[in-house]
Amino acid sequence: MILPFNSLISAEQLKPEIISKIFELTDQMAEMVAKQGRSNLLDDKIVALLFFEPSSRTMLSFQSAAQRLKAGTVFAQSASATSFEKGESIEDLIRVVEGYSDIIVMRHAQPGSAAIAASSCDIPFINAGDGGNEHPTQSIIDAYTIYKHKGRLDNLHVVLGYDSLQSRSIHSLSNLLSQYPNNRLSFIGPPKLFPSDEMLHKLEASGTACEVFDQAVLTKDVDVIYLNRLQEERFSDRQIFEENRLKYRLQRSDIEGSEVLILDPLPRIDEISTDVDSLPNAAYFKQTSYGVPVRMALLSALLNKQL
Amino acid sequence: MILPFNSLISAEQLKPEIISKIFELTDQMAEMVAKQGRSNLLDDKIVALLFFEPSSRTMLSFQSAAQRLKAGTVFAQSASATSFEKGESIEDLIRVVEGYSDIIVMRHAQPGSAAIAASSCDIPFINAGDGGNEHPTQSIIDAYTIYKHKGRLDNLHVVLGYDSLQSRSIHSLSNLLSQYPNNRLSFIGPPKLFPSDEMLHKLEASGTACEVFDQAVLTKDVDVIYLNRLQEERFSDRQIFEENRLKYRLQRSDIEGSEVLILDPLPRIDEISTDVDSLPNAAYFKQTSYGVPVRMALLSALLNKQL
Amino acid sequence: MILPFNSLISAEQLKPEIISKIFELTDQMAEMVAKQGRSNLLDDKIVALLFFEPSSRTMLSFQSAAQRLKAGTVFAQSASATSFEKGESIEDLIRVVEGYSDIIVMRHAQPGSAAIAASSCDIPFINAGDGGNEHPTQSIIDAYTIYKHKGRLDNLHVVLGYDSLQSRSIHSLSNLLSQYPNNRLSFIGPPKLFPSDEMLHKLEASGTACEVFDQAVLTKDVDVIYLNRLQEERFSDRQIFEENRLKYRLQRSDIEGSEVLILDPLPRIDEISTDVDSLPNAAYFKQTSYGVPVRMALLSALLNKQL
Repeated sequence: MILPFNSLISAEQLKPEIISKIFELTDQMAEMVAKQGRSNLLDDKIVALLFFEPSSRTMLSFQSAAQRLKAGTVFAQSASATSFEKGESIEDLIRVVEGYSDIIVMRHAQPGSAAIAASSCDIPFINAGDGGNEHPTQSIIDAYTIYKHKGRLDNLHVVLGYDSLQSRSIHSLSNLLSQYPNNRLSFIGPPKLFPSDEMLHKLEASGTACEVFDQAVLTKDVDVIYLNRLQEERFSDRQIFEENRLKYRLQRSDIEGSEVLILDPLPRIDEISTDVDSLPNAAYFKQTSYGVPVRMALLSALLNKQL
Repeated sequence: MILPFNSLISAEQLKPEIISKIFELTDQMAEMVAKQGRSNLLDDKIVALLFFEPSSRTMLSFQSAAQRLKAGTVFAQSASATSFEKGESIEDLIRVVEGYSDIIVMRHAQPGSAAIAASSCDIPFINAGDGGNEHPTQSIIDAYTIYKHKGRLDNLHVVLGYDSLQSRSIHSLSNLLSQYPNNRLSFIGPPKLFPSDEMLHKLEASGTACEVFDQAVLTKDVDVIYLNRLQEERFSDRQIFEENRLKYRLQRSDIEGSEVLILDPLPRIDEISTDVDSLPNAAYFKQTSYGVPVRMALLSALLNKQL
Repeated sequence: MILPFNSLISAEQLKPEIISKIFELTDQMAEMVAKQGRSNLLDDKIVALLFFEPSSRTMLSFQSAAQRLKAGTVFAQSASATSFEKGESIEDLIRVVEGYSDIIVMRHAQPGSAAIAASSCDIPFINAGDGGNEHPTQSIIDAYTIYKHKGRLDNLHVVLGYDSLQSRSIHSLSNLLSQYPNNRLSFIGPPKLFPSDEMLHKLEASGTACEVFDQAVLTKDVDVIYLNRLQEERFSDRQIFEENRLKYRLQRSDIEGSEVLILDPLPRIDEISTDVDSLPNAAYFKQTSYGVPVRMALLSALLNKQL
């Protein structure tokens, strides 16, 4: 086995030695794509892509990963999980799809659905997001982007915002970075969206220095700024949302001339001004493009295939 | 020609010698998949998959069949047939898709649409379900499952329930079995969902013994139990539905230790208790997985290709 | 470069020498399909198909084109553009998809979205319809059909109807034909749907004779009749629509025995009686089938690949 597990359900599985292995495989995939576009590596496999929640970005990226490796794909998409079949359990659904494919990728609105699904089948399974719970492939992409541009995952000062309370991707990236020595995390944004005390204690217990700032940006001695959008539904009052939306926003003038790396899991709404896009610091479109080689690496590793 | 027709529209076309041929081809397909995953057999063909009615199971299974044979696929899905193009006839729609593909698979809510479609094009056509009318590939899968596990389609005592009045799959399987000698069919379920007298007379006229029982299960001298779910919309009163749903249900204790084979076209709702799943009798997930080699056999046979 | 542009956004780009080149490539593609079904030409490429507006015909045709050349495809479909990601700009969306593919095909309800998209990415882009604005691949298909059946694009008398005021395809075909010498265009249909004066002046300024007729058909000295449907939403009053719908309709008796070529971009609703279909004049199903080799030619030319 290339990785010590059959299924990727949670970012908790991503220990440093596993991350290193996935990065090595990802580099190989990126190199293959640059050289020849597609490979026959998964030519004898079928990948099932089940998207029971709208997610065009993750969906297209997994499609591309499967296609770059010439896997066959079977594909189901629906606005809601329940519309797959009225009243059918996730366990049954997965046992059915197991009969049609060699590996299953699923996005599902229900937190915990990925673990249920993975334990219902004997073929490999990848969690492509289970509600607010986990989205481990996104965490690998985020970490890979930092690694490619900064050359390391330790000794970093990373600024994260603007919703550190509820953002799945900020939680996962923070936890992932806390496994490496000498990282420092600064959370920025509206105080009501600071990380929970529980989260901060956990990070600090692992030896990672954490601070919170009610600011739109922080650049002094910063290596990486990781931003995501404020979500209107988190604010009881539309007017307060509008004020925050304009206040918490990265501007070109904030970072021009510095070497800080700007990441965003996208979609970008207001959190980064579009005039940042043309700066060399802006890595968010690179970041989303890394989704393809990362997912190629995962699909093939879980199917025990290597270039 | 491998089969004596270009298009599969109705289970009526499935005479015993044709069923035997399809089983032979299905075995070859299953063997190929077990050995090498995919084949180049339909590498030069395009399969059109038109799903104008939600049907994730049949859709994924046909996608997988096409992909296992490396056919290209073109795919259209919509909640309702009318949304393909407002006001366009089925005849026109099929003539258009004929220009884009080498074989057409269609699911459509309108009974009789499959026959109209097949007669509108010169390329092969497969009915993947036309409303309450026909779903012939399901019938082949059901028969193939019995054949693989019991070794024969004659001299069987088959119990069918719980909605024998309206279930398309029970009608088709009963008719199919009535073509073979010495079969005996017992219909179980609520009396209001017993088969019509017309159906019983037709089956008995072909020499098949039929009986009806207001019971949840029947196991004595039974070879196969074929169950499908009660549909709430068949009951005028929600309370009566709830009572029936709990009453007509196969339990583990009913069959433990016996060799009776349990089938279900799925989705399974309440008709089979989940504790049945781990018994060797439970063949319903196997049954759905046979959909892939059966459909591979049909796609390739109608395109005059053989492994 | 095979064509002098990277992206096809507007029918304005279709100068006669470019049309000739595309026809030559289309002929090669049609010949390849007739001979061997599919080719490896785009085997190392990924085509992104983004359909943010229902369009089964164009969508299936592009899918088929990509599959006939064995490209990988990534595919996103939604009822409305906004549902891709709430609040995400077209620019961002395209930069994201650029990371997943080698060429992008997009249909989008917003006029002008194609030009924005093409300028947001460094990979080739094809406009598959941007609202009421442009649908240039349709124009090529229409012209190719005339060319295949009449052998020329000049010295033609072409009749167009029934909605010459608003039909994108009538506008584009008229403009395209006005680039060739000695064409004559007659617009038929309800006077309220005659072409705008601006359009007529522009056509005549290029040396193309134009006339308008409140008639359902015109056959004397006519080479081609190009019809599309009346759209109910153009009529304020349902009763007036019903009257027009029955009045403006091509009948078999109108053209039987003549050599006039009948085209329709489809879907056909009432504008052509179905008894016309079996006449040798009826070329509309041929026309839609030409969509595949035309789009194969465009996909491969923009990717700088040739058979």
